[in-house]
Amino acid sequence: MESKLEEQLQLLPAAELDRRIARMTGIMRRAGVDAVLIGDNANLFYLTGRVFCGYIYIDANGGVSYLVRRPGHLLGGDVLHIRKIEDIASLIAGRHPDAAVVGLELDALSWTTVSRISAMLGDKVAVANASDIMRRTRAVKTDAEIALMRASGVKQTQVYNAIPHLYQDGMTDIELQIEIERALRLGGCLGQFRTAGQTMELYMGSVLTGDNADAPSPYDFAMGGAGLHPSLPVGANGSIIKPHRPVMIDMNGNFTGYMTDMTRCYVVDSAAAEAVRLNRLSADICAAVADAARPGAKASDLYNIALTMAEAAGAGEWFMGHRYHAGFVGHGVGIEVNELPVLAPRSRDVLEAGNTIAVEPKFVVPGLGAVGIENTYVVCADGPARRITDASEEIISLR
Amino acid sequence: MESKLEEQLQLLPAAELDRRIARMTGIMRRAGVDAVLIGDNANLFYLTGRVFCGYIYIDANGGVSYLVRRPGHLLGGDVLHIRKIEDIASLIAGRHPDAAVVGLELDALSWTTVSRISAMLGDKVAVANASDIMRRTRAVKTDAEIALMRASGVKQTQVYNAIPHLYQDGMTDIELQIEIERALRLGGCLGQFRTAGQTMELYMGSVLTGDNADAPSPYDFAMGGAGLHPSLPVGANGSIIKPHRPVMIDMNGNFTGYMTDMTRCYVVDSAAAEAVRLNRLSADICAAVADAARPGAKASDLYNIALTMAEAAGAGEWFMGHRYHAGFVGHGVGIEVNELPVLAPRSRDVLEAGNTIAVEPKFVVPGLGAVGIENTYVVCADGPARRITDASEEIISLR
Repeated sequence: MESKLEEQLQLLPAAELDRRIARMTGIMRRAGVDAVLIGDNANLFYLTGRVFCGYIYIDANGGVSYLVRRPGHLLGGDVLHIRKIEDIASLIAGRHPDAAVVGLELDALSWTTVSRISAMLGDKVAVANASDIMRRTRAVKTDAEIALMRASGVKQTQVYNAIPHLYQDGMTDIELQIEIERALRLGGCLGQFRTAGQTMELYMGSVLTGDNADAPSPYDFAMGGAGLHPSLPVGANGSIIKPHRPVMIDMNGNFTGYMTDMTRCYVVDSAAAEAVRLNRLSADICAAVADAARPGAKASDLYNIALTMAEAAGAGEWFMGHRYHAGFVGHGVGIEVNELPVLAPRSRDVLEAGNTIAVEPKFVVPGLGAVGIENTYVVCADGPARRITDASEEIISLR
Repeated sequence: MESKLEEQLQLLPAAELDRRIARMTGIMRRAGVDAVLIGDNANLFYLTGRVFCGYIYIDANGGVSYLVRRPGHLLGGDVLHIRKIEDIASLIAGRHPDAAVVGLELDALSWTTVSRISAMLGDKVAVANASDIMRRTRAVKTDAEIALMRASGVKQTQVYNAIPHLYQDGMTDIELQIEIERALRLGGCLGQFRTAGQTMELYMGSVLTGDNADAPSPYDFAMGGAGLHPSLPVGANGSIIKPHRPVMIDMNGNFTGYMTDMTRCYVVDSAAAEAVRLNRLSADICAAVADAARPGAKASDLYNIALTMAEAAGAGEWFMGHRYHAGFVGHGVGIEVNELPVLAPRSRDVLEAGNTIAVEPKFVVPGLGAVGIENTYVVCADGPARRITDASEEIISLR
């Protein structure tokens, strides 16, 4: 592959871009926002199909200016080159209607960056928060996005199906994880694990076995793990994989810029009866939540379906953790791993067709470890949500 | 390894913590800042030896309050537990002198987070930027930090020395990279590649060969590469490794929470004479910069030494890139890969003993590819800076 001297900045087909802009400007108008200036990598990728260094200005009529800092060889309609934020004002003047309210990604951009942009926009412009506009826009995927997620799901499933071939007797959790990382990468996984927000750090996912599953993490993750080092206190900690104890595997599904989220449990020799029971309960909860995940359903109701089933099975105290209980049973997933809707008790999200949600009813049982599965589903106009992470839902034998 | 029910939050020995706080509060006082509230992962790690979710309040007298949100089982002196930012005000009242000016990490925290903190601190408190205070504090490493960096350098060197064993005929750049990733991980590499600032995304480093080296990246990286996918347009792009053309390898050196930065060139069969010449020039520039990198030296002068040598050798147009020229020849490195000082033409940084700097004079030649090396050095009180990335500086044979 030779690098080209010039490249089109905009990689999305025109009809696809129009679809995304139309959804976004509808949300902007209802929020009373005249224009947005977008600079976060995940949102730049959503609006162009690529990551670059720069900004995109979009007015509520759908007019677009691409303000590219780097790389300099990107060209195309509406592409303007900048050296710094302060160059933007004169470039957009005359290209867009005057805006009284401009949305910026206040939850993603630093205070310093927002301050520079605000000063550039001038005193007459009021700043609104575009983070929520972008989250709500991206929560409903287009058909093209769903196709990319399905493609990630197929590839992630292929690697998960091969995990038993990667296991060798005496391995630790991290040794098995490293072989899975390699298999994912050889299968085309891009590695980058995008999260919204600034603090969550996780490298390629987690492999948890034994008591390590009960070590609380700094983040509101479904599962914890002490990690290998206090600079990255999540996931595998070097525990030896012991027969009969579940090994929970939740690894990176980013093969297309869009990621699927899938967890499966594996075991050396036979699984303990309680692990089999709880794993089946987790799959049953997934199925029940998927059946209820239809347009108009409340995300909080989906959480309650899961909690009620867990409690009815006597597994309430282990549901979503033991020493620390994560405050949700599922979440939107796409370009980032923590999108809308959030399946949580106090969520006000209502499901729509085109949502893509990860459902992960998991249990941490002292003396046993972590048990449960996670699937990614597409919410459909009719019928139950459709699963796009198709590995076997049983506990899978490593040996 | 079993997880403990309670753990000490503060992992640094008291004398080491005192050393860091003393340096930091000196810089705070000179900047007229009465206290700082720190929340960025890299700075939390610097001040405790671990990452957690929460904040640290430090007044200019050195009084400390640890405000821990998660995990909840962290205990110790001066540890206070919070559920949200707004809990902090009442907890710190009475524990610290009244502060008129409080520093926040304005370059790292989101506008939303800074706004919540500002509201919590109240109208009487003026907010200053603590990002620069922390950067300047962390730019001079303590002996304990240098020991951690040396340990990373030893491990990174071991893996680099093993790279020829990982190569197989017909490999692409990404296939070789994946084997190096695995070797790094098995050698203890933590994976996480911390960068200051919010936009730079890179997965485990880069392997560049052939014309791909000349594809400009969105970031001010020394080297580019088109990457495998437009969502992550940096590094290896699937180019087949061809005989006689250099393969430049610049991979993750984070083994201890502190990372070393090292690049080496490899080749299948003999290297072209021009590659050998430019690689030697790169090593000679490293040695000259290291010799000049003494306390009191201007970072801009070090850049000029490198540029002058490159130009004298007729390599100016390839120096630090060809289609895109990176604006520096070296940078501080430690917990993050882009620390102070910056060796750049307009840098105002002046070197101090205890700086740890990566020096990376690299060349991109059309038709040949990327050539050059990178070393990490410790700036010493006397004599030249000491190299802590000790792989052979010659072009290394893969076959």
